[in-house]
Amino acid sequence: MTTRSVTATSFSPRRLGGWGFEGRNFPPSPGLLTWLEKRLGETQPFPVFDPTELAVPKGRSLPDLPLETSAAPLDRLAHSRGQGLTDLLRLRSGTVPAIPDGVARPSDSQEVVAILEGCAAAGVRVIPWGGGTSVTGGVNVIPGNQTVITLDLERLSGLEGLDPKSGLATFGAGTSGPALEEALGPHGLTLGHFPQSWELSTLGGWIATRASGQESLGYGGIDDLVAGLDLVAPAGRLELPPLPASAAGPDLRQLVLGSEGRLGVVTSATVRVRPQPERLEVEAVILPSWEVGIEAARRLTQERVPLSLLRLSDETETEVAMTVGLAGHPWMASLVRRWLELRGVKGGGCLMLLGSAGSAGRVRTTFSRGRALLRTLGAVSLGSRPGRQWLADRFRHPYLRDGLLDRGIATDTLETAAPWTALPAVYRATRRALESALAGYDESTAVLCHLSHPYQDGASLYFTVFFRCPADVDLAIERWASLKRTATSAIVAAGATLSHHHGVGSWHAPWLADEIGSDGVRLLESVTDAFDPQGVLNPTVLVDPKDRLET
Amino acid sequence: MTTRSVTATSFSPRRLGGWGFEGRNFPPSPGLLTWLEKRLGETQPFPVFDPTELAVPKGRSLPDLPLETSAAPLDRLAHSRGQGLTDLLRLRSGTVPAIPDGVARPSDSQEVVAILEGCAAAGVRVIPWGGGTSVTGGVNVIPGNQTVITLDLERLSGLEGLDPKSGLATFGAGTSGPALEEALGPHGLTLGHFPQSWELSTLGGWIATRASGQESLGYGGIDDLVAGLDLVAPAGRLELPPLPASAAGPDLRQLVLGSEGRLGVVTSATVRVRPQPERLEVEAVILPSWEVGIEAARRLTQERVPLSLLRLSDETETEVAMTVGLAGHPWMASLVRRWLELRGVKGGGCLMLLGSAGSAGRVRTTFSRGRALLRTLGAVSLGSRPGRQWLADRFRHPYLRDGLLDRGIATDTLETAAPWTALPAVYRATRRALESALAGYDESTAVLCHLSHPYQDGASLYFTVFFRCPADVDLAIERWASLKRTATSAIVAAGATLSHHHGVGSWHAPWLADEIGSDGVRLLESVTDAFDPQGVLNPTVLVDPKDRLET
Repeated sequence: MTTRSVTATSFSPRRLGGWGFEGRNFPPSPGLLTWLEKRLGETQPFPVFDPTELAVPKGRSLPDLPLETSAAPLDRLAHSRGQGLTDLLRLRSGTVPAIPDGVARPSDSQEVVAILEGCAAAGVRVIPWGGGTSVTGGVNVIPGNQTVITLDLERLSGLEGLDPKSGLATFGAGTSGPALEEALGPHGLTLGHFPQSWELSTLGGWIATRASGQESLGYGGIDDLVAGLDLVAPAGRLELPPLPASAAGPDLRQLVLGSEGRLGVVTSATVRVRPQPERLEVEAVILPSWEVGIEAARRLTQERVPLSLLRLSDETETEVAMTVGLAGHPWMASLVRRWLELRGVKGGGCLMLLGSAGSAGRVRTTFSRGRALLRTLGAVSLGSRPGRQWLADRFRHPYLRDGLLDRGIATDTLETAAPWTALPAVYRATRRALESALAGYDESTAVLCHLSHPYQDGASLYFTVFFRCPADVDLAIERWASLKRTATSAIVAAGATLSHHHGVGSWHAPWLADEIGSDGVRLLESVTDAFDPQGVLNPTVLVDPKDRLET
Repeated sequence: MTTRSVTATSFSPRRLGGWGFEGRNFPPSPGLLTWLEKRLGETQPFPVFDPTELAVPKGRSLPDLPLETSAAPLDRLAHSRGQGLTDLLRLRSGTVPAIPDGVARPSDSQEVVAILEGCAAAGVRVIPWGGGTSVTGGVNVIPGNQTVITLDLERLSGLEGLDPKSGLATFGAGTSGPALEEALGPHGLTLGHFPQSWELSTLGGWIATRASGQESLGYGGIDDLVAGLDLVAPAGRLELPPLPASAAGPDLRQLVLGSEGRLGVVTSATVRVRPQPERLEVEAVILPSWEVGIEAARRLTQERVPLSLLRLSDETETEVAMTVGLAGHPWMASLVRRWLELRGVKGGGCLMLLGSAGSAGRVRTTFSRGRALLRTLGAVSLGSRPGRQWLADRFRHPYLRDGLLDRGIATDTLETAAPWTALPAVYRATRRALESALAGYDESTAVLCHLSHPYQDGASLYFTVFFRCPADVDLAIERWASLKRTATSAIVAAGATLSHHHGVGSWHAPWLADEIGSDGVRLLESVTDAFDPQGVLNPTVLVDPKDRLET
């Protein structure tokens, strides 16, 4: 499990205006570029601006706070935006419209209390910041007259308490994925929460956005993993003890999970941890079609085959996977295709990855149950090589976006979830929307999709879309916004959720009423008013219906 | 599975002032009475009053509502109290201090809206009512000057929609346990939610109180089972669609779960259902001690042996179980004791019931894994007979309370949950509190406990306490209140939850701040204010700190 051995301390500095760490890259393969150019046409590189050359405007004066607040231009710039596509485009092109006036780094929750009090008194806005990896505009500074401070929680990091017998570990909210697993490792424990952003994102951020890791089928989402938490809200503190379950009123943990820094600042949390599995193995099979693949995913889940991960690519994503070499080497793709044809699979079929974690015996039994079920649906095994490759690359994928932008190809992802019966229609509607969204610009898109995070009653769909990125940043963002509006409207119109794990942020907020109703948004807003009566915290996320896609 | 074949239509009328249905009884066995008298001393019957002889005061005049509202004295009396011990004592003795002025039975959610509007305008209080089985004062009418209407949801009953492929079924909130399973039966489906109150309690009530069924280890608690719901609140309607998961903001479902009618009226819900298991089997073993039993429960759960039920009785409860004949026949108890002594179990040991639901093969594999683990801890098998007996009696146990009161023995139950590491101390502190609570009255108690509803990080403890019931109702209630105060304070002081599945109601409300903090209660109160600005709904539950144990 080399994917988990990345150490927090080994990282180089964060890249400004791109994913991850300086010096790390995941350039697109020639096969992928050829595949994309065939669909999108020829592309022009999207320019890269040197951020150190930007004349960052001086920040507004800061309120009197009991801790030093950084006003360094590059520090402020680095905290101006998340990691959504427009964020990259703005940062790369040096056209960020607003940056925070200061960056505060509290060392304990008392300092968080003091910051919120000081900012409330001075009329200053506060944006809580974990790993800064929001892809929904969740940490972005919005242009305006108000002073803005970003509250970076990186100093609230590390293991604060451990009860191995109960499987409970308390961490500072600013603890990153690698730092968290590194602290649990010596105790033979793991949280099992591995979102794609894992190298950068933090426990507090996972809680704020109701994140799900890639192995949530086995370990649960962060909403299952959080047993207790501390929240500093402008109107008071919530210190919810770790309890296995409670019927003592509504579960206030679940109100904080998904609150996106709008209700308060999560300062620490107690999470449910488990023994590190002896093994984590991922097997690959090909299913004859997307429809049969969905059926297979549903049955594997409802018949409770204890997988830790399940992922089904649609025909297009499978084709790309073959092209980039998931079958072993690129040249093997045609060999695999012929093998599949011999086994009766026409048109390439759909790739399914199945993960199992546990003892050797448990992994064996799980796969044997899974295989027996899949055989009845015409699955053809590809063995363990594609899974090993996927595991090795899974945290590298986000780097691909920057490499593609270098070539002038923009890529974004959208995700949702729906009951099993609704999934085929949600898939068709969203794919159709993404495919046709740029027709008005005479531009094509390429769309991939996979089903993942299956539940007894439904699953998530994850779409990746590619389009030619104009060198003019405003034009590029206009196209993206148009595409995003079309696709999001299609998702909610199909009755699927606005987000399975990316959250609402400010970009999805205009559609929240489509999911929980306008009364639901109003009631949620009255809850945010109760926790944060003056609107100090991140007021443009969650319940603010203004379309900010082009900010 | 005869326990599930009870049909809703076969029930006789509800008993007034006692559990369940007229004509059904579960009298205490001579063995139990002897065991109790030995510990408590001789007892005098608690009198029974004929409710039809009570001069029920005329109700206050009702507001103008668009549906007929019952003002019949016995109907109002039947809706005056839940099923807690003081409720039984008050009803049996004809000393109920307040009853509702009317009982409204809406037929659809529009009528619920109209009732809430009409009552808000007229300053009338509304108490939502499902099965009326609260044991926390959750549906009780509190004496006062305000007009009170009980909103009985029995007409919002039945299956409204079914999606078998996704395993989703929509029911009216007033659907009772038997009616719900009866509607799912022909489709080969089950909800798997079997609280002890199942014969009487309703889906809406389960949601309002965050209930857990006896098989929650396999099926999950009601908070896991609810995918979507409709809530009519005075400030608006929440129509939350059934989604397998969502990161679109805080989970508002989880705000409604446990809201105890304080935020609004649940009118319908979509629940996650599963194929009826081919089998449900319960095996019994004896563990050498309570401590070893807890260790066994923890390991079975953390090592993910897929049981649907686990229940560990402490030494005293085990002794009683043997006495009443769970070993087969009462005379077998001594035989069993000798058998255990031969196998090295001193002092009777602790009874553990393990349930498994599913195909014959799954049940076999599960028990075989369970047995292998338990053998290493010195468990001795008692076979399947005690389990069959327990299954046959599990919904009859609440009737026992009335039979004991007939003999002048009061009994009540308390429950909590805590992390595994804390459980032994919580057990000791609560048991000690219950044992000594009536020392000031020179009275003894008898205390039983079992561990159930295990989770990865902890489990629930369920205490049963017996004491001599004075024939004077006020004296009886004073003793109960004293005992309840002592035990509840001990539970929260030990860091355990105020309730695992009974809820807060009005009786636990004074201690809520011990669990979620005073800020937590204040913030929760501001949420209730947002949903119900005029305090129309059940204002004495959840966030009202007044001690009402003796009402």
